[in-house]
Amino acid sequence: MAEPVRIIGSFLSPYVRKVLVCLDAKGLAYEIDPIIPFFGDERFSQLSPIRRIPVFTDDRVTLCDSSVICQYLEDRYPEPALYPADIAARARARWLEEFADTRMGEVFIWGLFNQVAINPFVFGQPTDQAAVDRILAVDVPHVLDYLEGEVPAAGFLCGELSIADIAVAAFFRNAAFARFRVDAQRWPRTAAFVDRVLGLDAFRRLAPIEDRMIRTPPAQQRRVLAEMGVALTADSFATDTPRRGLMKI
Amino acid sequence: MAEPVRIIGSFLSPYVRKVLVCLDAKGLAYEIDPIIPFFGDERFSQLSPIRRIPVFTDDRVTLCDSSVICQYLEDRYPEPALYPADIAARARARWLEEFADTRMGEVFIWGLFNQVAINPFVFGQPTDQAAVDRILAVDVPHVLDYLEGEVPAAGFLCGELSIADIAVAAFFRNAAFARFRVDAQRWPRTAAFVDRVLGLDAFRRLAPIEDRMIRTPPAQQRRVLAEMGVALTADSFATDTPRRGLMKI
Repeated sequence: MAEPVRIIGSFLSPYVRKVLVCLDAKGLAYEIDPIIPFFGDERFSQLSPIRRIPVFTDDRVTLCDSSVICQYLEDRYPEPALYPADIAARARARWLEEFADTRMGEVFIWGLFNQVAINPFVFGQPTDQAAVDRILAVDVPHVLDYLEGEVPAAGFLCGELSIADIAVAAFFRNAAFARFRVDAQRWPRTAAFVDRVLGLDAFRRLAPIEDRMIRTPPAQQRRVLAEMGVALTADSFATDTPRRGLMKI
Repeated sequence: MAEPVRIIGSFLSPYVRKVLVCLDAKGLAYEIDPIIPFFGDERFSQLSPIRRIPVFTDDRVTLCDSSVICQYLEDRYPEPALYPADIAARARARWLEEFADTRMGEVFIWGLFNQVAINPFVFGQPTDQAAVDRILAVDVPHVLDYLEGEVPAAGFLCGELSIADIAVAAFFRNAAFARFRVDAQRWPRTAAFVDRVLGLDAFRRLAPIEDRMIRTPPAQQRRVLAEMGVALTADSFATDTPRRGLMKI
């Protein structure tokens, strides 16, 4: 086993959550610098040129894209496998991960979570309720209609638990933070799937930390996490003044 | 060898170009339905739920993300390898591909190419010259500064030719269509790298087709390609009326 890995990134990010669940599933310990990316300093920009989180560091790499990190973890620590062995199923798992990271990111993070959490609490800007209403009426149903056709009635998206399940389910935690729940009448398979995946131990272990962080101002998060017994990095890449990133995600 | 693969997507897309270069490098024949995604019909939306190109189909899969397609090609047809064998180098190659597809896509396609080619010629909207100037003054230099620190003085980004070189270089074809060339005084390594990679046979074979397509109205592209001897699909997913996609890329 190599030295513990280091993660830079907030417990409230679905991209960080995806990586932390993969680390947990593979039995890998980590230390975390729990910053919100808007609060990253200049050294953070050097590590992550488009100011994305999570940033992952171990004895061999520094990586700043969650999909690249998860694939690296799979390559280096193949067991238990989180990518299907069959080539076609593996491609489908990667596509569903990409759909989640891109389209669900756009809808649930930049559409919904950004409006109801980041804008008011990080940047002091009011929620644009008309924008939220449009997302809930048009974009969210489009995503859920697609997922409803993909998720199985039981089990996981590609047979065994895979990166696809982890990536998709991660976004529904942020949807819940934005007070959105899947309508089980309209999308029964998706609603059951989300409950099933978020009920896995690796997600359940993160949930109380996330629930606490959503109620904790950024400047106090590190202290509160230390009190909760979370393994933190000695160094932090945070500054006091938030700034918007170069790109959305 | 399986049946020939089918590609849906324009020769002018850097994401299509990346896949076509990988197919060429691996010696795989393909047929193409050369549509611009804005002109995709309802069946296209079914295949590609966020209306991205390229869409790739063979006897086993239908895939609609260029990175997923290229990784599938590597898994199914491992030789010649386009992903480094070393795990850390492979992760870096995937990161550079992601940087190209996301950040260079935002800057060169949605910033530059969209303004000077797609807006006027597809949607009949004038170029926003102030936006173009801002991209050329701020965003393009930021991308090139980053690349200048990554590309080697000779050879390729990760040793042998890899998906990283192909993904990065593909965007500079679209930059050229938008009349942008890398300033070799300011970014000498990047300028030489771009020339080196675009000089590879797989890129050179596509260049005359691309040069012709950039001067050909969408409705005539299929006929002109047939005259040029390009292998076209019998079926087409094109309509006559362009519409914007669900998301940018």
